[in-house]
Amino acid sequence: MKQAIIVRTDLKMGKGKIASQCSHASIASFLKVRKGDREKWLKGGMKKVVLKVKSEKALMDLYKKSKRERLPSILITDSGLTQIQSGTITCLGIGPTNDKKIDKITGKLKLL
Amino acid sequence: MKQAIIVRTDLKMGKGKIASQCSHASIASFLKVRKGDREKWLKGGMKKVVLKVKSEKALMDLYKKSKRERLPSILITDSGLTQIQSGTITCLGIGPTNDKKIDKITGKLKLL
Repeated sequence: MKQAIIVRTDLKMGKGKIASQCSHASIASFLKVRKGDREKWLKGGMKKVVLKVKSEKALMDLYKKSKRERLPSILITDSGLTQIQSGTITCLGIGPTNDKKIDKITGKLKLL
Repeated sequence: MKQAIIVRTDLKMGKGKIASQCSHASIASFLKVRKGDREKWLKGGMKKVVLKVKSEKALMDLYKKSKRERLPSILITDSGLTQIQSGTITCLGIGPTNDKKIDKITGKLKLL
């Protein structure tokens, strides 16, 4: 079991902003997962990868792919109080779910 | 309601590592909070601040303070597969809890 968080690099967010958006994605995606899978993931030490894409389009394409495969996934939109415009899609959370299912969607992406 | 995540800058972690450790802190601390407070925080849009300290000692001092005030808090230790030594304390999650209680502990810290 693992979770993937995919971040847009084209927004040039600072470290703190990225950390905050990823934490948001991590919890929001976690809450979409059924209880049994949540517990498995927690017991396994919350395995997680943080990956990057260069555009909103790339992020949206991943989201659509992930939804097509019926993986729990969620797009995170910034409230826009700092750094970037309100309503901007900043990142995507997928899972936690089966490693292979995650890899099928995100296997070609690079680590942030 | 808000959550605070405090990160050590002296470890010189990369963006992805920071995002991963903060996400870990965010979920682990969230799970320590009682259900009613969790729901309030989720409904309020998961308000969150990511702050920084310069040393392990500074992080431990905050943790002790936070525990003394009986705030839900958790230290995150890295599994050490990448970048830093296994068992290194990387960050601290506090809350979500009442804004004023968080500010009492973290009010003087700078944003990451």
